[in-house]
Amino acid sequence: MNGSASHPTGIYETILYGEDLPAMERFYRDVVGLWLVSGVEERSRGFRVSPTQMLLIFRASETLKGHPMVPTHGTTGEGHVAFAIERGTYDAWKERLALAGATIEKEVEWPVQAGVPETVGERARSIYVRDPARNSVELVEGDLWPR
Amino acid sequence: MNGSASHPTGIYETILYGEDLPAMERFYRDVVGLWLVSGVEERSRGFRVSPTQMLLIFRASETLKGHPMVPTHGTTGEGHVAFAIERGTYDAWKERLALAGATIEKEVEWPVQAGVPETVGERARSIYVRDPARNSVELVEGDLWPR
Repeated sequence: MNGSASHPTGIYETILYGEDLPAMERFYRDVVGLWLVSGVEERSRGFRVSPTQMLLIFRASETLKGHPMVPTHGTTGEGHVAFAIERGTYDAWKERLALAGATIEKEVEWPVQAGVPETVGERARSIYVRDPARNSVELVEGDLWPR
Repeated sequence: MNGSASHPTGIYETILYGEDLPAMERFYRDVVGLWLVSGVEERSRGFRVSPTQMLLIFRASETLKGHPMVPTHGTTGEGHVAFAIERGTYDAWKERLALAGATIEKEVEWPVQAGVPETVGERARSIYVRDPARNSVELVEGDLWPR
Protein backbone atom coordinates (compact mmCIF):
# COMPACT_ATOMS: atom_id res chain seq x y z
CA MET A 1 0.00 0.00 0.00
CA ASN A 2 1.23 3.43 -0.81
CA GLY A 3 -0.28 6.89 -1.20
CA SER A 4 -3.07 8.33 0.88
CA ALA A 5 -6.76 7.95 0.27
CA SER A 6 -8.22 10.98 2.03
CA HIS A 7 -10.36 12.23 -0.84
CA PRO A 8 -10.75 11.85 -4.61
CA THR A 9 -8.91 14.32 -6.85
CA GLY A 10 -12.07 15.10 -8.80
CA ILE A 11 -15.10 13.77 -10.60
CA TYR A 12 -13.81 11.79 -13.58
CA GLU A 13 -17.07 10.63 -15.18
CA THR A 14 -20.44 12.37 -15.03
CA ILE A 15 -23.32 10.28 -16.37
CA LEU A 16 -26.60 11.19 -18.03
CA TYR A 17 -29.12 8.91 -19.70
CA GLY A 18 -30.94 9.19 -22.99
CA GLU A 19 -32.42 6.62 -25.36
CA ASP A 20 -31.85 8.47 -28.66
CA LEU A 21 -28.05 8.40 -28.84
CA PRO A 22 -27.68 10.05 -32.26
CA ALA A 23 -29.78 13.00 -31.03
CA MET A 24 -27.81 13.15 -27.77
CA GLU A 25 -24.55 13.04 -29.73
CA ARG A 26 -25.64 15.94 -31.93
CA PHE A 27 -26.74 17.99 -28.92
CA TYR A 28 -23.60 17.56 -26.82
CA ARG A 29 -21.25 17.89 -29.79
CA ASP A 30 -22.91 20.65 -31.81
CA VAL A 31 -24.84 22.65 -29.21
CA VAL A 32 -22.69 22.24 -26.09
CA GLY A 33 -19.43 21.93 -28.04
CA LEU A 34 -17.98 18.76 -26.47
CA TRP A 35 -15.48 16.43 -28.11
CA LEU A 36 -16.80 12.93 -28.85
CA VAL A 37 -14.03 10.42 -28.12
CA SER A 38 -15.83 7.12 -27.72
CA GLY A 39 -19.06 5.30 -28.41
CA VAL A 40 -20.59 1.86 -28.36
CA GLU A 41 -23.26 2.08 -31.07
CA GLU A 42 -26.46 1.22 -29.20
CA ARG A 43 -25.18 1.69 -25.65
CA SER A 44 -23.13 4.84 -25.03
CA ARG A 45 -21.33 7.97 -26.11
CA GLY A 46 -18.27 9.40 -24.33
CA PHE A 47 -17.28 13.06 -24.49
CA ARG A 48 -13.96 14.46 -23.28
CA VAL A 49 -14.89 17.67 -21.45
CA SER A 50 -11.44 18.50 -20.07
CA PRO A 51 -8.16 16.64 -19.48
CA THR A 52 -9.65 15.28 -16.24
CA GLN A 53 -13.36 15.05 -17.01
CA MET A 54 -15.68 12.93 -19.15
CA LEU A 55 -19.39 13.16 -19.85
CA LEU A 56 -20.90 9.74 -20.56
CA ILE A 57 -24.33 9.27 -22.10
CA PHE A 58 -25.94 5.85 -21.65
CA ARG A 59 -29.14 4.23 -22.82
CA ALA A 60 -30.62 2.94 -19.57
CA SER A 61 -32.49 0.26 -21.53
CA GLU A 62 -29.02 -1.19 -22.30
CA THR A 63 -27.13 -0.55 -19.05
CA LEU A 64 -29.95 -2.11 -17.00
CA LYS A 65 -29.53 -5.40 -18.89
CA GLY A 66 -26.31 -6.17 -17.07
CA HIS A 67 -22.79 -6.31 -18.46
CA PRO A 68 -20.04 -8.91 -18.01
CA MET A 69 -17.52 -6.30 -16.87
CA VAL A 70 -19.26 -3.45 -15.02
CA PRO A 71 -22.13 -3.11 -12.52
CA THR A 72 -25.64 -2.34 -13.75
CA HIS A 73 -27.03 1.16 -13.53
CA GLY A 74 -29.62 3.29 -15.28
CA THR A 75 -32.19 5.94 -14.39
CA THR A 76 -35.41 7.27 -15.85
CA GLY A 77 -36.63 10.84 -15.61
CA GLU A 78 -35.01 14.19 -16.12
CA GLY A 79 -31.45 14.42 -14.82
CA HIS A 80 -29.37 17.54 -14.42
CA VAL A 81 -25.82 18.69 -15.16
CA ALA A 82 -24.08 22.07 -15.06
CA PHE A 83 -21.16 23.10 -17.25
CA ALA A 84 -18.82 25.95 -16.40
CA ILE A 85 -18.42 28.62 -19.09
CA GLU A 86 -15.68 31.19 -19.20
CA ARG A 87 -16.27 34.64 -17.65
CA GLY A 88 -17.38 37.06 -20.33
CA THR A 89 -18.93 34.44 -22.62
CA TYR A 90 -22.50 34.53 -21.27
CA ASP A 91 -23.96 36.57 -24.12
CA ALA A 92 -21.93 34.65 -26.71
CA TRP A 93 -23.44 31.41 -25.34
CA LYS A 94 -26.95 32.81 -25.59
CA GLU A 95 -26.26 33.70 -29.21
CA ARG A 96 -24.77 30.26 -29.89
CA LEU A 97 -27.77 28.50 -28.32
CA ALA A 98 -30.19 30.63 -30.34
CA LEU A 99 -28.32 29.84 -33.57
CA ALA A 100 -28.41 26.15 -32.68
CA GLY A 101 -32.17 26.33 -32.19
CA ALA A 102 -31.98 25.52 -28.47
CA THR A 103 -34.78 27.00 -26.36
CA ILE A 104 -33.65 28.76 -23.19
CA GLU A 105 -35.94 27.51 -20.43
CA LYS A 106 -34.68 29.87 -17.76
CA GLU A 107 -31.94 32.32 -16.81
CA VAL A 108 -30.91 32.79 -13.18
CA GLU A 109 -28.78 35.45 -11.53
CA TRP A 110 -27.57 33.83 -8.32
CA PRO A 111 -27.94 35.53 -4.96
CA VAL A 112 -24.75 36.19 -3.01
CA GLN A 113 -24.08 33.37 -0.52
CA ALA A 114 -21.76 33.38 2.44
CA GLY A 115 -18.42 31.82 1.55
CA VAL A 116 -18.82 32.24 -2.21
CA PRO A 117 -15.81 33.99 -3.76
CA GLU A 118 -18.07 36.39 -5.63
CA THR A 119 -16.72 39.67 -6.95
CA VAL A 120 -18.96 42.73 -6.69
CA GLY A 121 -20.76 43.21 -9.99
CA GLU A 122 -19.70 39.77 -11.18
CA ARG A 123 -22.42 37.64 -9.74
CA ALA A 124 -22.70 34.08 -11.01
CA ARG A 125 -25.48 33.47 -13.55
CA SER A 126 -26.90 30.51 -15.42
CA ILE A 127 -28.64 29.60 -18.65
CA TYR A 128 -30.84 26.47 -18.67
CA VAL A 129 -31.71 24.39 -21.72
CA ARG A 130 -32.98 20.80 -22.20
CA ASP A 131 -31.13 18.03 -24.00
CA PRO A 132 -33.07 15.63 -26.29
CA ALA A 133 -33.82 13.37 -23.28
CA ARG A 134 -35.15 16.41 -21.34
CA ASN A 135 -32.22 16.46 -18.94
CA SER A 136 -31.80 19.97 -17.55
CA VAL A 137 -28.50 21.33 -18.88
CA GLU A 138 -27.14 24.43 -17.17
CA LEU A 139 -24.32 26.72 -18.33
CA VAL A 140 -22.86 28.64 -15.39
CA GLU A 141 -20.71 31.77 -15.57
CA GLY A 142 -18.89 32.25 -12.26
CA ASP A 143 -18.77 30.27 -9.03
CA LEU A 144 -21.89 30.11 -6.90
CA TRP A 145 -21.00 27.52 -4.24
CA PRO A 146 -18.99 28.07 -1.04
CA ARG A 147 -15.39 26.88 -0.90
CA MET B 1 -21.00 40.36 -26.31
CA ASN B 2 -17.44 39.37 -25.56
CA GLY B 3 -15.47 36.17 -25.19
CA SER B 4 -15.91 33.04 -27.26
CA ALA B 5 -18.35 30.23 -26.60
CA SER B 6 -16.76 27.29 -28.36
CA HIS B 7 -16.96 24.83 -25.48
CA PRO B 8 -17.47 24.75 -21.69
CA THR B 9 -14.36 24.81 -19.49
CA GLY B 10 -15.56 21.79 -17.51
CA ILE B 11 -18.40 20.09 -15.67
CA TYR B 12 -19.22 22.30 -12.71
CA GLU B 13 -22.04 20.33 -11.08
CA THR B 14 -22.59 16.58 -11.20
CA ILE B 15 -25.95 15.46 -9.83
CA LEU B 16 -27.11 12.27 -8.15
CA TYR B 17 -30.43 11.55 -6.47
CA GLY B 18 -31.23 9.91 -3.16
CA GLU B 19 -34.15 10.22 -0.78
CA ASP B 20 -32.31 9.62 2.50
CA LEU B 21 -30.15 12.75 2.65
CA PRO B 22 -28.58 12.11 6.08
CA ALA B 23 -27.40 8.69 4.85
CA MET B 24 -26.16 10.19 1.57
CA GLU B 25 -24.35 12.91 3.51
CA ARG B 26 -22.60 10.37 5.72
CA PHE B 27 -21.58 8.26 2.72
CA TYR B 28 -20.14 11.05 0.58
CA ARG B 29 -18.49 12.79 3.54
CA ASP B 30 -17.20 9.84 5.56
CA VAL B 31 -16.70 7.09 2.97
CA VAL B 32 -15.79 9.07 -0.18
CA GLY B 33 -14.14 11.91 1.73
CA LEU B 34 -15.89 14.91 0.19
CA TRP B 35 -16.32 18.31 1.82
CA LEU B 36 -19.93 19.28 2.59
CA VAL B 37 -20.37 22.99 1.84
CA SER B 38 -24.10 23.44 1.45
CA GLY B 39 -27.44 21.87 2.18
CA VAL B 40 -31.14 22.64 2.13
CA GLU B 41 -32.50 20.36 4.86
CA GLU B 42 -35.09 18.24 3.02
CA ARG B 43 -33.96 18.99 -0.55
CA SER B 44 -30.23 18.80 -1.18
CA ARG B 45 -26.61 18.48 -0.11
CA GLY B 46 -23.69 20.12 -1.92
CA PHE B 47 -20.12 18.80 -1.78
CA ARG B 48 -17.06 20.69 -3.02
CA VAL B 49 -15.00 18.05 -4.84
CA SER B 50 -12.34 20.36 -6.25
CA PRO B 51 -11.95 24.11 -6.86
CA THR B 52 -13.93 23.68 -10.09
CA GLN B 53 -16.27 20.79 -9.29
CA MET B 54 -19.33 20.15 -7.14
CA LEU B 55 -21.31 17.00 -6.40
CA LEU B 56 -24.96 17.76 -5.67
CA ILE B 57 -27.33 15.25 -4.10
CA PHE B 58 -31.04 15.92 -4.53
CA ARG B 59 -34.23 14.27 -3.33
CA ALA B 60 -36.13 13.80 -6.58
CA SER B 61 -39.40 13.85 -4.60
CA GLU B 62 -38.56 17.51 -3.85
CA THR B 63 -36.95 18.68 -7.09
CA LEU B 64 -39.87 17.29 -9.13
CA LYS B 65 -42.30 19.52 -7.25
CA GLY B 66 -41.06 22.59 -9.08
CA HIS B 67 -39.15 25.56 -7.71
CA PRO B 68 -39.67 29.30 -8.17
CA MET B 69 -36.09 29.83 -9.33
CA VAL B 70 -34.78 26.75 -11.19
CA PRO B 71 -36.19 24.20 -13.67
CA THR B 72 -37.60 20.91 -12.40
CA HIS B 73 -35.53 17.74 -12.62
CA GLY B 74 -35.31 14.39 -10.86
CA THR B 75 -34.66 10.76 -11.74
CA THR B 76 -35.43 7.36 -10.27
CA GLY B 77 -33.25 4.29 -10.51
CA GLU B 78 -29.57 3.67 -10.02
CA GLY B 79 -27.32 6.43 -11.35
CA HIS B 80 -23.57 6.32 -11.77
CA VAL B 81 -20.57 8.53 -11.06
CA ALA B 82 -16.81 7.98 -11.18
CA PHE B 83 -14.27 9.77 -9.02
CA ALA B 84 -10.59 10.01 -9.90
CA ILE B 85 -8.18 8.82 -7.23
CA GLU B 86 -4.48 9.54 -7.14
CA ARG B 87 -2.03 7.06 -8.71
CA GLY B 88 -0.69 4.75 -6.03
CA THR B 89 -3.70 5.04 -3.72
CA TYR B 90 -5.71 2.08 -5.04
CA ASP B 91 -4.88 -0.27 -2.18
CA ALA B 92 -5.26 2.49 0.38
CA TRP B 93 -8.77 3.14 -0.96
CA LYS B 94 -9.67 -0.54 -0.67
CA GLU B 95 -8.52 -0.45 2.95
CA ARG B 96 -10.45 2.76 3.61
CA LEU B 97 -13.63 1.32 2.08
CA ALA B 98 -13.29 -1.88 4.11
CA LEU B 99 -12.82 0.11 7.33
CA ALA B 100 -15.90 2.19 6.45
CA GLY B 101 -17.92 -1.00 5.99
CA ALA B 102 -18.51 -0.39 2.27
CA THR B 103 -18.95 -3.53 0.18
CA ILE B 104 -16.87 -3.65 -3.00
CA GLU B 105 -19.24 -4.81 -5.74
CA LYS B 106 -16.60 -5.16 -8.43
CA GLU B 107 -13.03 -4.35 -9.42
CA VAL B 108 -12.06 -3.80 -13.05
CA GLU B 109 -8.66 -3.61 -14.73
CA TRP B 110 -9.31 -1.69 -17.95
CA PRO B 111 -8.16 -3.00 -21.32
CA VAL B 112 -5.79 -0.80 -23.27
CA GLN B 113 -7.71 1.36 -25.77
CA ALA B 114 -6.39 3.24 -28.75
CA GLY B 115 -5.70 6.85 -27.88
CA VAL B 116 -5.57 6.29 -24.13
CA PRO B 117 -2.41 7.74 -22.57
CA GLU B 118 -1.74 4.52 -20.67
CA THR B 119 1.73 3.73 -19.42
CA VAL B 120 2.96 0.13 -19.66
CA GLY B 121 2.32 -1.56 -16.36
CA GLU B 122 0.13 1.29 -15.18
CA ARG B 123 -3.19 0.28 -16.59
CA ALA B 124 -6.27 2.11 -15.29
CA ARG B 125 -8.37 0.22 -12.73
CA SER B 126 -11.58 0.80 -10.85
CA ILE B 127 -13.31 -0.08 -7.60
CA TYR B 128 -17.13 -0.05 -7.54
CA VAL B 129 -19.31 0.45 -4.47
CA ARG B 130 -22.96 1.51 -3.97
CA ASP B 131 -24.14 4.63 -2.18
CA PRO B 132 -27.19 4.45 0.14
CA ALA B 133 -29.50 5.12 -2.86
CA ARG B 134 -27.83 2.27 -4.79
CA ASN B 135 -26.08 4.63 -7.22
CA SER B 136 -22.99 2.92 -8.63
CA VAL B 137 -19.96 4.82 -7.32
CA GLU B 138 -16.65 4.13 -9.06
CA LEU B 139 -13.16 5.10 -7.94
CA VAL B 140 -10.75 5.17 -10.88
CA GLU B 141 -6.96 5.11 -10.74
CA GLY B 142 -5.54 6.28 -14.07
CA ASP B 143 -7.07 7.52 -17.30
CA LEU B 144 -9.04 5.06 -19.41
CA TRP B 145 -10.65 7.28 -22.06
CA PRO B 146 -9.07 8.58 -25.27
CA ARG B 147 -7.95 12.21 -25.46
